[in-house]
Amino acid sequence: MIMNDKGAPVPETRVLAVASHVVSGYVGNKIAVFVMQSLGCDVAALNTVQFSNHTGYGQWTGTKTTAQEISDLFRGLKQSYLDDFDMMLSGYVPGAEALEAVGAIAKELKAKAKARPGSFFWVLDPVMGDNGTLYVAQDVVPVYRSLVPYADLILPNQFEAELLSEVKIQDMPSLARAIQVLHERYGVPHIVITSVSLPQHPQQDPTATTPRSLSVVGSTMTSSRRARAFQIVFPAIDCYFSGTGDMFAALTVVRMREAVWNTRHLGGAEAWRSADDVDALELPLARAVERVLASMHEVLTRTRAAMGEGAAGGVVVNGAGAGVGEEKKKAARLVRSKATELRLVRHLDSLRFPKVQFRAVRV
Amino acid sequence: MIMNDKGAPVPETRVLAVASHVVSGYVGNKIAVFVMQSLGCDVAALNTVQFSNHTGYGQWTGTKTTAQEISDLFRGLKQSYLDDFDMMLSGYVPGAEALEAVGAIAKELKAKAKARPGSFFWVLDPVMGDNGTLYVAQDVVPVYRSLVPYADLILPNQFEAELLSEVKIQDMPSLARAIQVLHERYGVPHIVITSVSLPQHPQQDPTATTPRSLSVVGSTMTSSRRARAFQIVFPAIDCYFSGTGDMFAALTVVRMREAVWNTRHLGGAEAWRSADDVDALELPLARAVERVLASMHEVLTRTRAAMGEGAAGGVVVNGAGAGVGEEKKKAARLVRSKATELRLVRHLDSLRFPKVQFRAVRV
Repeated sequence: MIMNDKGAPVPETRVLAVASHVVSGYVGNKIAVFVMQSLGCDVAALNTVQFSNHTGYGQWTGTKTTAQEISDLFRGLKQSYLDDFDMMLSGYVPGAEALEAVGAIAKELKAKAKARPGSFFWVLDPVMGDNGTLYVAQDVVPVYRSLVPYADLILPNQFEAELLSEVKIQDMPSLARAIQVLHERYGVPHIVITSVSLPQHPQQDPTATTPRSLSVVGSTMTSSRRARAFQIVFPAIDCYFSGTGDMFAALTVVRMREAVWNTRHLGGAEAWRSADDVDALELPLARAVERVLASMHEVLTRTRAAMGEGAAGGVVVNGAGAGVGEEKKKAARLVRSKATELRLVRHLDSLRFPKVQFRAVRV
Repeated sequence: MIMNDKGAPVPETRVLAVASHVVSGYVGNKIAVFVMQSLGCDVAALNTVQFSNHTGYGQWTGTKTTAQEISDLFRGLKQSYLDDFDMMLSGYVPGAEALEAVGAIAKELKAKAKARPGSFFWVLDPVMGDNGTLYVAQDVVPVYRSLVPYADLILPNQFEAELLSEVKIQDMPSLARAIQVLHERYGVPHIVITSVSLPQHPQQDPTATTPRSLSVVGSTMTSSRRARAFQIVFPAIDCYFSGTGDMFAALTVVRMREAVWNTRHLGGAEAWRSADDVDALELPLARAVERVLASMHEVLTRTRAAMGEGAAGGVVVNGAGAGVGEEKKKAARLVRSKATELRLVRHLDSLRFPKVQFRAVRV
């Protein structure tokens, strides 16, 4: 790995990050900005909401940034020559109209970079839902379908991959088919499907109630839009954390840039797409996701361990837990939500110098 | 120095940071949040504006957070038990009404912590103006005067110290008088006056057009509100940077916590005020400011050096510099503003492991 400027793994990289902001806790830009900054990126953070906390708490206050405000902020950047981005990461955007405004920004940056292949790279996290449940309005889905053709890399979870490909993912063959459809239909060069959980998953114990392992499946298409897929299996952690998708996406931005930077001549290739003779397991995307998962696993393991130490469930914090019945249950849920906030800032080395444990294998 | 959790210099510290947010560049919370996070603090970031860039560019887009929205966000934190802050840092707040809303938050947190001395510490940066010019509305000044009695540490620059003390600072005796007035009138335990520039400054060359050295003057009062002042002289850099006050304040939050943490029993003392027999040069505040200045000097020196390397003046960026006359001048100013943005993210080690070069001396 090439290290520049005292520990940053990437060359000077200017990223536009468009996602939600929470005052307290770690989701959306509140994670993505810190992750990318701590790895040496100059991040422009356009916040699509300012909420007191993430919606997993079940209650929050704050405001959304309107489509007009999003467009105005980008206009502000342009008029002062501050739109010189190398990469863009877009995450949660509230509503179809605001999402169209974000899409317009990405398209404009993409058009501006057309003459210089590889000079702008859009990582699109199509945040729509999870585990079979849509948590955005129905009219957001077609907007994402219209934007994916402009993205260089998309990071859907299993459910979102189904929504975009219209292929039901039930096993490895249907997963592989979904990836092929995504490359073909949208022409999107790089795909990472995060947290895939399938019944016949390797190491899975059919009697267990929760999966013991999950996997990430990635692919970089060839010039004829054929998938080159790899899989990375990693152990599941018995806890639900918010913000993991946002952390994954932010790490992918940096590690993809790093892997491409470490690959001769690839930085000037259209969409950083490897030549057709490069094997799935040799893709820069595979190297990138291995490093992403290493950081993810370290931070999640440490967050889970800290919860066990007392910050978490059952412990009464600041009067939470007072009251009776429903009120008590609600307080316990809030305290638990806080305890599961990702512990990033105390584990900077897990972001910067992760130890790769889980390797890409053939699908 | 005690290092916890893989390099963080402070114990688990939860900070509420209230300041402006800019999409691109580094001022306000965009600096403060990263600085405190990279030093291991869990930062809740309440953004008082979302602007495309800082106002030093002369043009920007974006919106201000209203007083009502600020209060609502804090209510959102409280209702989910997320108001368990160890420290608060408040910076730029647009307008008197919004500042009153921020002051109400600080007063409430302070009142809640009353039974546990040292359990909450408010660092107030009274952002009003610089070099003799007020850059907030006139009605903001009395609001700051009403809030300083609740602060544990204030960080006025020379002009702001004059506004609060109503003492004209012209030499070291008048500076010492201003500090004494601030302690006495407001009962504020810790004061740091940033970037003091006086004609008879040590090492000053009277024929030079710009100062060759500046100083920071700090003081922690005794139980009878007597000042204990120290001074740290450091070389001036021939460039104007935005956001230095915000960076100074954020570093002070962490380094003050660290210095107090390293001082036996002081963490439980009211407002972390040292016993009366502690000499000015032995104050935790002196240790803290030495470390703050070390980071500041490293980052500013490196930012200045990178400007010289071509990112800065004269170089045409993205079509800037096109046009004629006024338009050309404006473009050059914008390009220069971008080049002077503090280079924090490429110099993480300067924030985390600064080498102290400039020591506190007696005033």
